[in-house]
Amino acid sequence: MDIYEESVELHKKLGGKLSVMPKMAIKDRHDLALAYTPGVAQPCKEIAKDKNKVYELTIKKNSVAVVSDGSAVLGLGNIGAEAAIPVMEGKALLFKEYGSIDAFPICITTQDSKELIHIIKNIAPVFGGINLEDISAPRCFEVEEALQDLGIPVFHDDQHGTAIVVLAALINACKVAGKKLSDLRVVINGAGAAGTAIAKMLLCAGHEKNSCTPVKEIIVCDSKGIISKDRLDIKINPAKAELAKLTNRNQVKGTLADAINGADVFIGVSVANILNEKMVKSMNKKSIIFAMANPVPEVMPDDAKKWGAFIVATGRSDFPNQVNNVLAFPGIFRGALDAKAKQITNKMKIAASYALSSYVKEPAVNNIIPSVLDKAVAKAVAEAVKKAAQ
Amino acid sequence: MDIYEESVELHKKLGGKLSVMPKMAIKDRHDLALAYTPGVAQPCKEIAKDKNKVYELTIKKNSVAVVSDGSAVLGLGNIGAEAAIPVMEGKALLFKEYGSIDAFPICITTQDSKELIHIIKNIAPVFGGINLEDISAPRCFEVEEALQDLGIPVFHDDQHGTAIVVLAALINACKVAGKKLSDLRVVINGAGAAGTAIAKMLLCAGHEKNSCTPVKEIIVCDSKGIISKDRLDIKINPAKAELAKLTNRNQVKGTLADAINGADVFIGVSVANILNEKMVKSMNKKSIIFAMANPVPEVMPDDAKKWGAFIVATGRSDFPNQVNNVLAFPGIFRGALDAKAKQITNKMKIAASYALSSYVKEPAVNNIIPSVLDKAVAKAVAEAVKKAAQ
Repeated sequence: MDIYEESVELHKKLGGKLSVMPKMAIKDRHDLALAYTPGVAQPCKEIAKDKNKVYELTIKKNSVAVVSDGSAVLGLGNIGAEAAIPVMEGKALLFKEYGSIDAFPICITTQDSKELIHIIKNIAPVFGGINLEDISAPRCFEVEEALQDLGIPVFHDDQHGTAIVVLAALINACKVAGKKLSDLRVVINGAGAAGTAIAKMLLCAGHEKNSCTPVKEIIVCDSKGIISKDRLDIKINPAKAELAKLTNRNQVKGTLADAINGADVFIGVSVANILNEKMVKSMNKKSIIFAMANPVPEVMPDDAKKWGAFIVATGRSDFPNQVNNVLAFPGIFRGALDAKAKQITNKMKIAASYALSSYVKEPAVNNIIPSVLDKAVAKAVAEAVKKAAQ
Repeated sequence: MDIYEESVELHKKLGGKLSVMPKMAIKDRHDLALAYTPGVAQPCKEIAKDKNKVYELTIKKNSVAVVSDGSAVLGLGNIGAEAAIPVMEGKALLFKEYGSIDAFPICITTQDSKELIHIIKNIAPVFGGINLEDISAPRCFEVEEALQDLGIPVFHDDQHGTAIVVLAALINACKVAGKKLSDLRVVINGAGAAGTAIAKMLLCAGHEKNSCTPVKEIIVCDSKGIISKDRLDIKINPAKAELAKLTNRNQVKGTLADAINGADVFIGVSVANILNEKMVKSMNKKSIIFAMANPVPEVMPDDAKKWGAFIVATGRSDFPNQVNNVLAFPGIFRGALDAKAKQITNKMKIAASYALSSYVKEPAVNNIIPSVLDKAVAKAVAEAVKKAAQ
């Protein structure tokens, strides 16, 4: 039985991966009167008088909705709300295991951005935070942006979770390779949610001054090649047009192979096996490759090494340097909830990256990022995020 | 410290009454690969191929949303979504304690019926049922009705939960008093969600033939007195106009005092202390009084007894015969989920009432309804409901 069949069997056996548990038992009439009527009227009244008390008296204090419309689930594409549930349950499970957060999956039928925004706004009262998940680009940008004034943190993990962990890994990779972030030539392949967020994070676009060392030279490629302002298809895509403005300093044109020639860093959030021997060999000395396509990376680590790559990271658990969002989102939300933050700011995201990178005491070629199994990582991230929020 | 202060302290100490728990631990990379990527892709694919598998592979199998817009919470009125959370958490807690159901509170900001319907439809994928709660009349009728084709049971507890328990209690009260349901003259005071549903339940309006013994003579009163077709304010209120058509056979007019004169049964879902000595004394012999206003009933049981009432029930735990919805909703949903029912039909509701009434082996003046602390009640109700669904 392979991992896929085993996973199906496990899901069947468990009947879903989450359970909602009372924090108190009902043993007698007194318990019933405290948890429900008539006693419960009093917490209700107190919140009606002062809305802030909702954080003291209800689960809002520690609850996060994992929200998806099922439009871009894993590498599976637009499989819809129902089929997305196992992923959202898994995410909620990780929130608890790593961040002690009570997360609940909310899968939404509509894929209309305006409706999504309206629905999420309206179901927010019981939640202390919203983790957006697996919503396709460019809709994910619009949805996340529109919800920033909701009064609770709203965070699209496919964008920022990935970007935070990538920046952390890159900080350590630079230490090991003896390179400076600000001197790097970086190529990002993939201009969806993750690629866009990584580019912005490395550029510190909109970040507070001095809170991060910007990478000055970034080229982003999509399936049509290098993203530059004068590409016709870019002009009618606002998200990519913005990216074209922010990146590609010299507005060069060409293919991924052109872009990667001489680059220090390749960051792939795209498709399997897109990097060949010639491309890897064309990179600068001590090259850094993050090949994060799942489940098959842009280049297999053994090949990349053979062809001269100095440091290789993937999204996979069967190779060193696993770049995985679970290193970020539980700590990010833990810190944001503890700080009662109303947004997750760039400052908080960058603090998370630095907390992650400095968690690795002795960075090395095969040790640029903490282990996904080390549950103390989330605590370190949470502390840094909480501090940055205050 | 009274029960109200104690409840606030408990809510603070617990930080909300619910916790979301993983059904499996993440101890190693293998666990992570099964619960999350890459293994989780397979359950997703199976559901994408066959939507029915969502019941096998996700929490939908056993999950219920407790949904409110906070427009009619307990006796507190329109206190809004945030202030409603403690009640909805309490309800979710009771779902688990009594029905082994994983329920989660969803409190919705908008109070526009059309928007509520739209939102509930869109968040339904992860839920196996929807328990509507504390939504004000007449909006609750429209919302519940519009959601009956959602493909999962949608049940407004303030209407049907109450009606089911009232019918159960009335069946046993009749046994004890030696009266027949079909001969009763019943007065219902309160024409909101509960009063309307009780009237319809007793009339078996729309019920399958022979599945219940109809009460033929019912008069409903609201704050303006007896509801009859020619009351001017009734003509412009569709819910009350329907009630006026269904009840009050002889279309009599007058006050509650006029209605109750000679009645066998008074059912109050209204306000405190509305029944006086003269009214109680004017009722038929072996009169039955369900005074369910909370926390202060329409008449205190000791007074009612002193004034000649034969059987008295209230919503309170400190008197015998506690009519409480917790006797119904956990078993109703347990049975509906187990039967994979797409709706909760009248047949299922009536089956629940008869299961509840026959659970009381020896009905007596102070024993017409099971104890709210007897958790085996929900099982008996669930079995009857499941059977009626099939």
